[in-house]
Amino acid sequence: MVVTHPTTGQQLNIGLDAVSVPRLRASLELADSSGCDFIIAPLVHPRYERVNINQPAAAKSSVFSAAPPPIVRDDPLTRSDLELTSGEWMAGVVAKLSPWIRLDSPNPVLRAASEAAFAEEVAFATHLSLKALLIPPPNGGAQGVANLARCLSTALLEAPMLQLWIRLPVLDLPGKVPPLPYDADDPASLPTDMEPWDVWNTIRTLCGEHPHLGVALELTAELPPRPVLERWVAEPVKVVLLSTSSYVTNKVGYPVLSRRHQDFIKMMFKMTPFFALTGRAHKVKGGDGYRPFVQYLAHLFGKMPGASEAETVEAPYYDYLQSPLQPLANNLGSQTYETFEKDPVKYAAYEEAIRQCLEDHDYGNEKPVIMVVGAGRGPLVKSSLRAAEAVGLPIRVIAVEKNPNAIVTLRNMKSEPGWEDVTVIAKDMRNMESSVQADILVSELLGSFGDNELSPECLDGANRLLKEGGVSIPCSYTSFLAPLASTKLHNEVKSIGESIKQMETPYVVKIHRGKLLAETQPVFTFTHPNRDAVIDNSRYKKMQFTVSETNLVHGFAGYFETILYKNIKLSINPPTFTEGMFSWFPLFVPISTPVYVKGGTTLTAHIWRCISSSSVWYEWCVSEPTITPIHNPSGRSYSIGLRT
Amino acid sequence: MVVTHPTTGQQLNIGLDAVSVPRLRASLELADSSGCDFIIAPLVHPRYERVNINQPAAAKSSVFSAAPPPIVRDDPLTRSDLELTSGEWMAGVVAKLSPWIRLDSPNPVLRAASEAAFAEEVAFATHLSLKALLIPPPNGGAQGVANLARCLSTALLEAPMLQLWIRLPVLDLPGKVPPLPYDADDPASLPTDMEPWDVWNTIRTLCGEHPHLGVALELTAELPPRPVLERWVAEPVKVVLLSTSSYVTNKVGYPVLSRRHQDFIKMMFKMTPFFALTGRAHKVKGGDGYRPFVQYLAHLFGKMPGASEAETVEAPYYDYLQSPLQPLANNLGSQTYETFEKDPVKYAAYEEAIRQCLEDHDYGNEKPVIMVVGAGRGPLVKSSLRAAEAVGLPIRVIAVEKNPNAIVTLRNMKSEPGWEDVTVIAKDMRNMESSVQADILVSELLGSFGDNELSPECLDGANRLLKEGGVSIPCSYTSFLAPLASTKLHNEVKSIGESIKQMETPYVVKIHRGKLLAETQPVFTFTHPNRDAVIDNSRYKKMQFTVSETNLVHGFAGYFETILYKNIKLSINPPTFTEGMFSWFPLFVPISTPVYVKGGTTLTAHIWRCISSSSVWYEWCVSEPTITPIHNPSGRSYSIGLRT
Repeated sequence: MVVTHPTTGQQLNIGLDAVSVPRLRASLELADSSGCDFIIAPLVHPRYERVNINQPAAAKSSVFSAAPPPIVRDDPLTRSDLELTSGEWMAGVVAKLSPWIRLDSPNPVLRAASEAAFAEEVAFATHLSLKALLIPPPNGGAQGVANLARCLSTALLEAPMLQLWIRLPVLDLPGKVPPLPYDADDPASLPTDMEPWDVWNTIRTLCGEHPHLGVALELTAELPPRPVLERWVAEPVKVVLLSTSSYVTNKVGYPVLSRRHQDFIKMMFKMTPFFALTGRAHKVKGGDGYRPFVQYLAHLFGKMPGASEAETVEAPYYDYLQSPLQPLANNLGSQTYETFEKDPVKYAAYEEAIRQCLEDHDYGNEKPVIMVVGAGRGPLVKSSLRAAEAVGLPIRVIAVEKNPNAIVTLRNMKSEPGWEDVTVIAKDMRNMESSVQADILVSELLGSFGDNELSPECLDGANRLLKEGGVSIPCSYTSFLAPLASTKLHNEVKSIGESIKQMETPYVVKIHRGKLLAETQPVFTFTHPNRDAVIDNSRYKKMQFTVSETNLVHGFAGYFETILYKNIKLSINPPTFTEGMFSWFPLFVPISTPVYVKGGTTLTAHIWRCISSSSVWYEWCVSEPTITPIHNPSGRSYSIGLRT
Repeated sequence: MVVTHPTTGQQLNIGLDAVSVPRLRASLELADSSGCDFIIAPLVHPRYERVNINQPAAAKSSVFSAAPPPIVRDDPLTRSDLELTSGEWMAGVVAKLSPWIRLDSPNPVLRAASEAAFAEEVAFATHLSLKALLIPPPNGGAQGVANLARCLSTALLEAPMLQLWIRLPVLDLPGKVPPLPYDADDPASLPTDMEPWDVWNTIRTLCGEHPHLGVALELTAELPPRPVLERWVAEPVKVVLLSTSSYVTNKVGYPVLSRRHQDFIKMMFKMTPFFALTGRAHKVKGGDGYRPFVQYLAHLFGKMPGASEAETVEAPYYDYLQSPLQPLANNLGSQTYETFEKDPVKYAAYEEAIRQCLEDHDYGNEKPVIMVVGAGRGPLVKSSLRAAEAVGLPIRVIAVEKNPNAIVTLRNMKSEPGWEDVTVIAKDMRNMESSVQADILVSELLGSFGDNELSPECLDGANRLLKEGGVSIPCSYTSFLAPLASTKLHNEVKSIGESIKQMETPYVVKIHRGKLLAETQPVFTFTHPNRDAVIDNSRYKKMQFTVSETNLVHGFAGYFETILYKNIKLSINPPTFTEGMFSWFPLFVPISTPVYVKGGTTLTAHIWRCISSSSVWYEWCVSEPTITPIHNPSGRSYSIGLRT
């Protein structure tokens, strides 16, 4: 049974890590009767135990040697695939690699035998087109991880459809991967000297962050503090394993989870991994077998708050990379205008800013002139008219727009009531002449990173359209950056192609599977009107971030804040985010080779805003703890055109 | 005047860093009269001093802004290009960037003015097609280096013909870049907090190791110990600047250099940079002006030993990347055979090994059978016949060769005296049948990395051709690896193309501009005949190198040692190198992103020899101090074919 959220429609898959699987179909039925819709079962039934590490034939290293399998047997590898239909295999079963397989063993004979058996099991899992193969936790210590990773990377290349999930326990600090019972008699199984996250980071880095490599996160009775847990949000956690032993019994005898467990599980719900129960189903109130434990999970899931309007709009865009708009070089389409006009918060804020501005000034018996530059399909004209009505002041509005298609809309609106005093001018604000100057210059030219759609260049170009002492709405804006960990986004960028170009391009994206590793810091600020004798919109900023938890930095998340007028502000910067606004997604600025940063140390980054006669671009780099090349030198990979 | 070495024919260019250059032609003549063939002169004559850092116009950041130059002047930037012919400019002048230009200044106004002026001077240097522009030492401390690097990387992209040489002093530890006199009154010029090599490493890494970025190495009176100096051998040192003040006067009054200076300069002679004298020409014996100082340099150069035979053969191959031979998949050409047959040492060693082997054994009244597998054009057949003659023992020789073209040569030799008892078989040793078995199996199937031309697979395939108790010559071989610093080789690999493929391929190359950062360590060993029930030629090796000096690791250098028979050995492993042998160049195994390693710390590397039914390949990675992806997973970029 798949649990579906009452309001969001989001689905929850709960599975069962079967303790023993005498018959597959029986286990599937047991799982189903407990409300689970898949099982985690050994790929090779223990009955078919077959390794003989004294047989030198086992000592073949290439895990995909096409030579005959080293362990020659006539009996089958395991039970027949006919036990289930292929549909049941695919949807109902996640397989576990045989626990004796020790790809990280320092014992060369065991390692070689393991490699041969691993190749066999990967081949069989592919034959069954299983969704994933579960890899036991690396256990031979850091020294063994390299060989484990090599075998995994080979499997990922040779079995392109198969996912490999590495089982890793979440432990309280100082977290260690504990020796597992089935290794008790293995001389090689020293407890590893690395924290689980570091084990994961080593393996995924050695495997080139392959997208089919995932984490099977095993929750223990003791959980580490939130910052340590939160790191997993940025990682590809495919299944969360929850032991029945980490449940406690509430006063009326039902199995429940501690507050810390609940918080973490709710955090993970948003990332939509599978969940699976492990351990034995000890007797509890609320039914037989695993049902009460499953029901409690389903109950937690059902209690999740419904999606907000913004969330509903944004959900389809999670981690979906878009190129930033280039409103100067290209003309926006009708659909784009429509999406942005839907924002419930932005235009209300503009209206209030204009209203206050009109109130604050005495325009004598002149009608104040509001010039909307980049009027698009007129939302800011409407905000202006509403504001004027609110203060009961007749105004003149001049709507300037360079996009001929939007002009069509504006000219049609001229017939609407209240638009009598609106003049529409089909010009580029930077080179138009006007007999009248504005008291208020209203614009919405900001991008996700504030100045990245060239608002500074446009508004400076419109300076002479504004009266001495006139007001620009917005009157200032500031961009913000923070280091980001996101295997997902980095892989999305890599999937675009092999050249350096896409790694030197910023993307607009609703960051979902990612984690900010430090507080955002202000980058570039622009104020309008800018009356400098010579205007310089180029910038250079050096930033030093203190990273709290050890992590891998895949790039930076970019945001902005703007002051429309006095204390009327708009922000997509997390700490000051304007609730309900969805006009802007953050900017993702990648770095080509992820940078490993130890917890408590400093990450030093540099960013430049560069200008030529034809375009504007950013260049960026990291100089601490490691040095990266400067990205996008002289805008070779990405720049924003100044020409229309 | 260009100094030419009497025997090697190598050339030495000595130049003059002119203290002041009132007239360019006059300075060129002075230089010439002192035996110099170029001058280092300010690009912009100080008289044309022009910065005004209070002028906000200077605050343009894009160093290549196509907007009108910020500092608007009607007087010329500097003296006219007509002062010299373009030939004289190109060959005779290396220009110095104006010393006031401080691209690394924390003062934004000075920095902006510097960027604008830098753009002007780069443009003018390009206009004159100068060979290089000399950049003053970074002086604002590490914090300023990032912006300096950004300006350089931009210039390197915008002026693709121009070389930029960064002036860096070689200092005794703890080396620091000292504040320079012309910065005394500059608030920004704190002494940098980095060692000169680290300053260089930061800049070149930020600039993506651009091939046109070089070092102008300034020798000081005090030199650091040899290991610190040697690091510069692996760097693109374009000119060595030698101050007259670092000369001492010998007892008869002539200017000479200290032993340590001599040693370092001789080391640099091999790298063929330019040399240039700096400082004033104080009065010394041996002539006026700079002549005595120049003559001493020329004298040192002339004293350099002439090239050995091997050096003469190898010189054209310095840092020239070749793909390793694939003698199984391809047939070698006549020219390749000829080159290898020329080796003066190798075949003598084989002859001696065969001789000793014949002496050590009692063959009764049977003629001992020597089987040469992979006989090529017969050099080992000849060695065998010579050896037999030496011990006065009649032998039978069976020459096995799969290359039909080489068979032609062998069959023709049959008519030569002494070849009566030679049988030629045109077969692949791995699948030929033979009625007679060999007492001695002789082969030369080794590559630069020992097993990398599949000697193990071939000889194992020939096992049944060898009598019980028979001898294989060679009887064993071992490969060796050491971490290597070589900007040059890494750039050579990058120049092949942008994809990952070439970074996952080993190359055969005579490493010249490179430095081993630790002692070589043994990797894989193979022994013959291999009588194991099941033969496994796959291998895995983990190596830990202690790196003495902080450096950047670009990959690994691979070598091999082989024991032909008892104590007859051949080696290209530096500590045991077989003098005079030139049949093998080392192997260069690149890593895609160079790894920065601090002096005294450990570099952990892993390498695997993998085998499938159709090919053999290596995979490798670094796991400490940073983690790289595993290179060449499942041989996706490079493998050695087993099929003929």
